[in-house]
Amino acid sequence: MPTNHESEARFREEMSASEKVFSGRLLQVFRDRVILPTGRETTREYIRHPGAAVVIPYLGNRHLMLVRQYRYPVARALLELPAGKIDAGEDPQETITRELEEETGYAARSIRYLNRFHPCVGYSNELLYLYWASDLVKGSLTPDADEIIENVPMSVEEALEMVFAGVISDAKSIIGILWADRILRDAEFRQRFEIRLAE
Amino acid sequence: MPTNHESEARFREEMSASEKVFSGRLLQVFRDRVILPTGRETTREYIRHPGAAVVIPYLGNRHLMLVRQYRYPVARALLELPAGKIDAGEDPQETITRELEEETGYAARSIRYLNRFHPCVGYSNELLYLYWASDLVKGSLTPDADEIIENVPMSVEEALEMVFAGVISDAKSIIGILWADRILRDAEFRQRFEIRLAE
Repeated sequence: MPTNHESEARFREEMSASEKVFSGRLLQVFRDRVILPTGRETTREYIRHPGAAVVIPYLGNRHLMLVRQYRYPVARALLELPAGKIDAGEDPQETITRELEEETGYAARSIRYLNRFHPCVGYSNELLYLYWASDLVKGSLTPDADEIIENVPMSVEEALEMVFAGVISDAKSIIGILWADRILRDAEFRQRFEIRLAE
Repeated sequence: MPTNHESEARFREEMSASEKVFSGRLLQVFRDRVILPTGRETTREYIRHPGAAVVIPYLGNRHLMLVRQYRYPVARALLELPAGKIDAGEDPQETITRELEEETGYAARSIRYLNRFHPCVGYSNELLYLYWASDLVKGSLTPDADEIIENVPMSVEEALEMVFAGVISDAKSIIGILWADRILRDAEFRQRFEIRLAE
């Protein structure tokens, strides 16, 4: 049941003016004047983001590779799936191939695209692409000297328990771990995404 | 295995200066100078956000209430679970009680806190609280005249299929629907969160 254009028209907010209010190294912040379907005018503030990619690195034997790294905005080190921002003109699969290797030291001989989603619809246009990586072998890329990243392998059962206990709190990683659970327990689901578990 | 303070110290980035670079009606944007554990200095740009709450409204008979509304940053109407920003000094449960009623017309006689997570760790400190609402009865609050919100009831199976097909793309709603699936198929899980299905 995708949203069709007819139903969309009733909702649409039309931009009447757009202003870039902050241009940083990472963030581009805009404040637009918009006309609501009711005719009233209001402002919308939001981030324009290049998009990102996140990966579920499957180690075999029901284990995933997570990474722990510091996240300044929330002032703590978090357990996450490997992820990274898409560089200009890059295919998200290239992004995640590089990030996987830089953050975990593994290169994947098999990568499957699963889905994409919006992490933050209230104030960002970011679109995040989710991949499954398997048949992992030692790669050659290493993290930037200033990126402190710790590898944390764990079973999908441990990861799920950390999700439901609130220990893993990063939304993209929660989504990836819930997908991994479904992939590992549902053969028909694996077939749909052309995933084979070689064990 | 929660992160402990000892392991956290190796990762910590210390703020040396903080500048508010944009102060809008919705967004507060900061650019901080930070010292990395390696001693190098860099900048971090991020949003300070008051937090938000999201709810899984359970209609009974394996059905949830979703809402469709326009999201200007992504320029389309999205199917989501009801949610809203926390007002200053407000408990997130008050927030979600109000938002549920405004967006769906239903008041909940039972609300359970499930979890909280960070939707956007790369550039926002937002924390999002997830609730389960059941025993729904007609309420009295109505949406703001300028908020166009459509109610879309559906079974958890339909919602799950829309998640895996990429039709539901909002991260907080994906997480809520995957929780709802687990709640509806696992009696032990329900017990853990003191959820009873009165049917």
